[in-house]
Amino acid sequence: MTIGESIGLDDLPLRADLRGASPYGAPQLDVPVRLNTNENPYPPPPALVADVTEAVTGAAAELHRYPDRDAIALRADLASYLTSATGVPLGVPNLWAANGSNEVLQQILQAFGGPGRTALGFEPSYSMHPIIAAGTRTEWAPTPRRPDFTLDTARAADILARRRPDVAFVTSPNNPTGGSLPLAELRELIAAAPGLVVVDEAYAEFSSRPSAVGLIGEFPARLIVSRTMSKAFAFAGGRLGYLAAAPAVVDALQLVRLPYHLSTLTQAAARAALRHAEETLHSVHVLSSERDRVMESLRGLGFDVVHSDANFVLFGRFTDARTTWQSYLDHGVLIRDVGIPAHLRVTIGTPAENDAFLAASEEIVR
Amino acid sequence: MTIGESIGLDDLPLRADLRGASPYGAPQLDVPVRLNTNENPYPPPPALVADVTEAVTGAAAELHRYPDRDAIALRADLASYLTSATGVPLGVPNLWAANGSNEVLQQILQAFGGPGRTALGFEPSYSMHPIIAAGTRTEWAPTPRRPDFTLDTARAADILARRRPDVAFVTSPNNPTGGSLPLAELRELIAAAPGLVVVDEAYAEFSSRPSAVGLIGEFPARLIVSRTMSKAFAFAGGRLGYLAAAPAVVDALQLVRLPYHLSTLTQAAARAALRHAEETLHSVHVLSSERDRVMESLRGLGFDVVHSDANFVLFGRFTDARTTWQSYLDHGVLIRDVGIPAHLRVTIGTPAENDAFLAASEEIVR
Repeated sequence: MTIGESIGLDDLPLRADLRGASPYGAPQLDVPVRLNTNENPYPPPPALVADVTEAVTGAAAELHRYPDRDAIALRADLASYLTSATGVPLGVPNLWAANGSNEVLQQILQAFGGPGRTALGFEPSYSMHPIIAAGTRTEWAPTPRRPDFTLDTARAADILARRRPDVAFVTSPNNPTGGSLPLAELRELIAAAPGLVVVDEAYAEFSSRPSAVGLIGEFPARLIVSRTMSKAFAFAGGRLGYLAAAPAVVDALQLVRLPYHLSTLTQAAARAALRHAEETLHSVHVLSSERDRVMESLRGLGFDVVHSDANFVLFGRFTDARTTWQSYLDHGVLIRDVGIPAHLRVTIGTPAENDAFLAASEEIVR
Repeated sequence: MTIGESIGLDDLPLRADLRGASPYGAPQLDVPVRLNTNENPYPPPPALVADVTEAVTGAAAELHRYPDRDAIALRADLASYLTSATGVPLGVPNLWAANGSNEVLQQILQAFGGPGRTALGFEPSYSMHPIIAAGTRTEWAPTPRRPDFTLDTARAADILARRRPDVAFVTSPNNPTGGSLPLAELRELIAAAPGLVVVDEAYAEFSSRPSAVGLIGEFPARLIVSRTMSKAFAFAGGRLGYLAAAPAVVDALQLVRLPYHLSTLTQAAARAALRHAEETLHSVHVLSSERDRVMESLRGLGFDVVHSDANFVLFGRFTDARTTWQSYLDHGVLIRDVGIPAHLRVTIGTPAENDAFLAASEEIVR
């Protein structure tokens, strides 16, 4: 008998717009091959684990004190990494970090969205964008991509100019479809948008296209580039999202962030992980070539494959995606039904995991 | 030259209600005696540091995977601790945790507050309550305490019944004034409130009064008790806030929480810290008796001291609190100007820190 279990959700004064909702999240199942949440399949190398441990040991002795509220040292390290990755000279004032890119995006909408304001996304895209819009009471304006999931940039620019959203999300590479945009098309979109454009680059390291970070100097009052350490850095468990923008954007986010939002441990561990960037990012090359192999193999098996620049592949077509998802699970392979009719998404794993997935695919396609 | 520094806040489409605001936070100054943010002055004992380190080493090897989204093991440990601390049998479904109690409170207002809804607090109280209300676009209804900062319960109950706030905050012990409420008065308030009552017990371990947790069974649809590991557990740097409530309340918060909000490291480190509860909470007794000594000494020096059940003391009266705050700083003692006219707040430190504070007080009072 649990205290208070006599009441249910209906007995609580829950906001009307939340009634009947379900919590976001893919099933966390214990399956031999887990290829459903775009995690990096390679565990942190022992040297990184040792470095994180050492950093945390030092930090643990100061756990009775609040963390550096502004996370200056971590932001300096993120600036160095992003400068070396993109060639764009960035400093601490250009960087901001939070507990996962979801919190970064939530802070952006708290400052620039909210009641009476609109955020727009080109769907299908990252499903947290509309959820975070709802959580901040920002009106969500979904705009469809082409049937093949690519973005018609001229049409998108026209929509941004006409609908004038306060915030527009452009995800490149796009999740869950995998395609990315060249810099010229990103420029066209930002130039057309009267409001802010958030280029969500969670999967940027897997793509060979240049980063939108290079456009911040050109559009300082319009462009925010969000990133994460979850994917390329194999740091999903560490929860570290960040963004690059003009210093005034970072100032604005400091008006809405919860004070001391980043723990001492998070700051120390993320800095340790960044020191191993070169080593960790080697896995990105391995994963990118495995992705190309998986795409080719799936095509060879007769699947319809959406070209991907990320660490996942959207493929089909299935009469009933849900049933096919279950067939993969029955083969011990957990992939993702992202709600796109006739399609499923598979995360690129280790070569052995990809082989298991491809073997299951071969049986399923029969 | 920093990229994008040509623009300022005024060039950005910031929400109107944020224009002219400043980020929340006490100055983080490097001063010999820091008694300004109610931190526990005792560093984690070496055994705890060793245990946190070991836990993190294990967790670090899995950093490429997302954390347990529901933080089940951590919530079980929090339930055990709270059950042993209060005698109330609680289970995982009664507990919820987030990155500091600020995030817990933000989630509560996202689910039960927001546009068109009202949150009420008895001021002066924790200054983040109205800030989190603003961040979630919840209307803030401040209600004054008595001039001596105690709560007139009968009057407060009447106000709750008449004004019908969707959420009411009752902070016990109250920050920054230090007083706490007996269970009978808490019951009277909750019984009178048509909406939710959040009893903020961030400083509960320093008080000898029973916890409001004992009232959850009586008021499952109305009562939430929030807590933190920052103070008593000396875990401010670890950022772990939590709450106890009916299971349906926890279900509601899962509709608004960002997925994977608690990192693997946070979950592992908090669990390690909870294993050392007995040891850590020993410091609470030391701090409580130091608090009584500081109150008595300040009274002996002729100060006006507000009775405190927490790890800080509000005292006065000063012609100009800001100038007196600076005098303390000139003596190497950083305390807090919480914005209450004629008063300052001092956190209880180690005996040596308290001696330094009292010596400064003696010189300043002359």
